Amino acid sequence: MARYQVILAYDGTLFEGSQRQANSRTVQGDFEKALRKVGWSGSSVLIAGRTDTGVHATGQVAAFDLDWSHAETELVNALNAYLPADVAVREARVTRDDFHPRFDATSRRYRYRLFCQPVRDPLREKLAWRTWPTVDGECLVQTAALLMGTHDFAAFGSPTTPKGTTVRTVIKAEWQSVSADEWQFEVQADAFLYRMVRRLVFVQVAVAQGKASTEAVARSLAEQAQGPRKVDLPSGLAPAHGLTLVEVTY
Amino acid sequence: MARYQVILAYDGTLFEGSQRQANSRTVQGDFEKALRKVGWSGSSVLIAGRTDTGVHATGQVAAFDLDWSHAETELVNALNAYLPADVAVREARVTRDDFHPRFDATSRRYRYRLFCQPVRDPLREKLAWRTWPTVDGECLVQTAALLMGTHDFAAFGSPTTPKGTTVRTVIKAEWQSVSADEWQFEVQADAFLYRMVRRLVFVQVAVAQGKASTEAVARSLAEQAQGPRKVDLPSGLAPAHGLTLVEVTY
Repeated sequence: MARYQVILAYDGTLFEGSQRQANSRTVQGDFEKALRKVGWSGSSVLIAGRTDTGVHATGQVAAFDLDWSHAETELVNALNAYLPADVAVREARVTRDDFHPRFDATSRRYRYRLFCQPVRDPLREKLAWRTWPTVDGECLVQTAALLMGTHDFAAFGSPTTPKGTTVRTVIKAEWQSVSADEWQFEVQADAFLYRMVRRLVFVQVAVAQGKASTEAVARSLAEQAQGPRKVDLPSGLAPAHGLTLVEVTY
Repeated sequence: MARYQVILAYDGTLFEGSQRQANSRTVQGDFEKALRKVGWSGSSVLIAGRTDTGVHATGQVAAFDLDWSHAETELVNALNAYLPADVAVREARVTRDDFHPRFDATSRRYRYRLFCQPVRDPLREKLAWRTWPTVDGECLVQTAALLMGTHDFAAFGSPTTPKGTTVRTVIKAEWQSVSADEWQFEVQADAFLYRMVRRLVFVQVAVAQGKASTEAVARSLAEQAQGPRKVDLPSGLAPAHGLTLVEVTY
């Protein structure tokens, strides 16, 4: 018996999130079903990051204990043979016995994709948020710079434990232009609040569409340190289907 | 009553091709249903390029006669409101009364996407062909160069009419590296043989994986001019889901 660490990729479209729930199709549920086919008899796998309904992953991390006498690549192949088409194991390796994918993580990295078009675009809008009017790219870049560092992000999400801290440290917040009408946001932090990435994207896009000011974002981050929250930011979330969990670091 | 020319985009995954067929879900079928909702009473729309089951489009062209008293953008919005999520009208405009999207076309441009990975990748493999081993990029570029110009492409497809010519003129054939493991082929020609793009991609990838030679491709194009076809190329087709009809020019 050894503890294995695997990297999971999934198209979140048809999953009700990553965490197992009764009567819902979840990534954890499908993954545990495949694991049982290769001899796993545990009660629950450990998963690094909770992803909401519709959110994708290319670098989700899971861990479990398994008695497996073949090579690690054979485990990848065996699990992929049992997993449905929208989820796959990308890598598997033996790790230390007390490895915990969530508590041991030092950072998480997410990517959010969006494009600006007034009409529907069936090929792109499954994995990216279509928004209109177009965004001011310079403005996205400037707003993202404000997020860097340690701040109280209470205006951008809820704590992940009751009464938990809303202070997080953002170590990367970068917008890249992918094509004439397409943008990609990469954000990495020690940890994220509940729905924080989708909220960050929504607010930055609102600013870049002239619906909110960069100053309001700066103020919302500064105010938290000084007292009660006075939100003057537009409320809302960027849709789940533009978001992908890309990497968890240890 | 005026003739309208529209640009259609669709995710071909759940369609049995572009052309209407009884008892199958097709792009033409769904598009004609939406057109009837805005008052169209014709028997059949005209479509520029036939796409196979699973093939996508961002620039398919269709034409039809319609009595429409509002702006062209209103027609786009009205049709998109009735069309299902995987097909959309991107543009609509009035054209000349005898415009025919297929017979008037001067060229078609397709894009084929592939990536090289040994294991499944749920987020990418819906719209790109996953192949392994990896391809030699230099080799793809060299093989594509052979396709340029006017050749008898009999080794790469069937004529679109019985006993029709298999001579076509390729005006663009270009591989681009999109990321470390991802490639994109753009090919434009006056017209294409049946399944020609998927066959061209399959053969070029075989060459770039060391399973066939560049010389065999050169020979297959030269031989046709000199007499009976002697095929020494690997047989097969790249899968439909990597292919997109990008543009039809007039």
